[in-house]
Amino acid sequence: MRATLMYKSGDVRVVEVPEPELREATDAIIRVTHACVCGSDLHPYHDLGDTPEGRRMGHEAIGVIEQIGTDVSTLAIGDTVIVPFAWSDGTCAFCQDGVTTSCVHGGFFDGASSATQAEKLLVPQADGTAVKIPAGTDESFMPSLLTLSDVYLTGYHATIRGEVGPGKTVTVIGDGAVGLSAVLASKQLGAETIILMGRHTARTDLGREFGATHVVAERGEEGVAKVREITGGEGSHVVLEAVGHMPAYEQAYGIIRPGGTISRVGVPQYEDAPVGFGSLFGKNVTLTGGPATVRAYLEAAIPQVLDGTIDPGRVFDRELPLDDIAEAYRLMDDREALKVLIRP
Amino acid sequence: MRATLMYKSGDVRVVEVPEPELREATDAIIRVTHACVCGSDLHPYHDLGDTPEGRRMGHEAIGVIEQIGTDVSTLAIGDTVIVPFAWSDGTCAFCQDGVTTSCVHGGFFDGASSATQAEKLLVPQADGTAVKIPAGTDESFMPSLLTLSDVYLTGYHATIRGEVGPGKTVTVIGDGAVGLSAVLASKQLGAETIILMGRHTARTDLGREFGATHVVAERGEEGVAKVREITGGEGSHVVLEAVGHMPAYEQAYGIIRPGGTISRVGVPQYEDAPVGFGSLFGKNVTLTGGPATVRAYLEAAIPQVLDGTIDPGRVFDRELPLDDIAEAYRLMDDREALKVLIRP
Repeated sequence: MRATLMYKSGDVRVVEVPEPELREATDAIIRVTHACVCGSDLHPYHDLGDTPEGRRMGHEAIGVIEQIGTDVSTLAIGDTVIVPFAWSDGTCAFCQDGVTTSCVHGGFFDGASSATQAEKLLVPQADGTAVKIPAGTDESFMPSLLTLSDVYLTGYHATIRGEVGPGKTVTVIGDGAVGLSAVLASKQLGAETIILMGRHTARTDLGREFGATHVVAERGEEGVAKVREITGGEGSHVVLEAVGHMPAYEQAYGIIRPGGTISRVGVPQYEDAPVGFGSLFGKNVTLTGGPATVRAYLEAAIPQVLDGTIDPGRVFDRELPLDDIAEAYRLMDDREALKVLIRP
Repeated sequence: MRATLMYKSGDVRVVEVPEPELREATDAIIRVTHACVCGSDLHPYHDLGDTPEGRRMGHEAIGVIEQIGTDVSTLAIGDTVIVPFAWSDGTCAFCQDGVTTSCVHGGFFDGASSATQAEKLLVPQADGTAVKIPAGTDESFMPSLLTLSDVYLTGYHATIRGEVGPGKTVTVIGDGAVGLSAVLASKQLGAETIILMGRHTARTDLGREFGATHVVAERGEEGVAKVREITGGEGSHVVLEAVGHMPAYEQAYGIIRPGGTISRVGVPQYEDAPVGFGSLFGKNVTLTGGPATVRAYLEAAIPQVLDGTIDPGRVFDRELPLDDIAEAYRLMDDREALKVLIRP
């Protein structure tokens, strides 16, 4: 079958690989009908060293079940399912807490031997991982449903961990698809003021449609000053950080209100960061976030898409066949596209 | 009057200084009846450079009002009051949020020109800062009431920010007076399992009386392994970090359960720390805490002391006159005393 491999920074190719085979009785194999390129795929696209064997890419998918292991009981061949970016058994203590990304039998498709930018996908812990879409769901819903495998629910995770709610001022750092999703989720949760920090007008315009009340194009100290001005000098109750680079982190603690919460969902491209008296501690600031526990939110989100409450699929502004996925990476890297949907 | 000054690491003296005078109409001056030495006073005791003019010491006090400015309306001369370690106006947006340590007219006695290890104390923003003790309160309650100026309510702050509650496993790092206070507060809030990490038996014995269900004397990796064993390999829902040094921080993220909360009240003796995928982010760990918003909790805590619900004053195991305060520092630094009460 055809699958996407990255061999080094900027070198993405579609190549023939062996079809996946069931390994565990809890596995399933799906034929991928919808996949996409994630903002986080651009991190290795920028800095992956020479990888002669290639790195399998992609961690977002909708597909149709083709095979199931003997222990899979909730799914049947022919079901259309959403597969989140991490697999999880749904039964361990951490899954029961809702922290599905820390499942004791879990893992991440990103960097794994099976990945979604391909014709077929091995889904470990299929009962716990994959969620059925109602039979007969119209194709027009698929882009929004696909965002439930990662991007929309990652934005939503930021808002949940950040305790966004009515009356709160929320600032979203980053106008990528996750940042825009965080704006949409903040609006859903009743945030009063939603400040979107981003400089790409096409993106921030969609952010306004999703619910942003203010857009701040400035960065660094100027951006911090602007947000402080909008908030009457008091800072933002919640900051949702959807970038992952240190300047975004620094911006976050510059604009946070004393006692407020910085919620990160941009995968940190750093390990150490300021947390002492001068950054977080002195202002009683809470730092939270992590890999989105998408699976814990998925069942509740599907009906919201199907009844039209949310339309997060609007983040897709391009669509390409699998064979052209290298172009999808390029479009996103050059910011010519916000997010590209792939049809294997 | 006599006041305590520190001139460099290890050099604490009681010297004559001018009496404080009212500067603002919102000030009050109290005659200090009870003060004490704080674990955080030991930080400059270890590392203060040469300070020829001396640094005024002390930030915990009970005293009797001697003078009030013309705008002070809720206090009268002769009132006995508790003064928290930070002053605050009680009216600004942050005070209304309960984040009194970020008051726009606030400040910290620690390092200020007025400090509590002295015969008299200037209290800025007296209406917002000082809280009356009922007239006629028995002297036997004073040690416990004095802990409400900092140490007990700092432990309590850790539990509130850490969302300690019924069914939770809580680990307290540090067997100093704040750590033991955090144990007592966790017990009050219904924590099911309370693990105290500390190696000083006299202290951990008091910790057991305050509610610790387990004591772990090991540190570093061994300590982490021990807590993981006690928690069935899952880690602790909440970690209350009452030390402030990097090894305690590292211990905290080693023992935290995925999705759990590390709440810091030990003043960080570092600015940068691990927060990336390998420490906090990957496990969806929340980092919270800061200078305790003691003032926000004070009114509710006084009746708990007076009706015997809590007896946090048990952390005082020595009492000395002001003139012997250098000995109090030495006793605490050498761990011969847990916390020393001072009578100016």
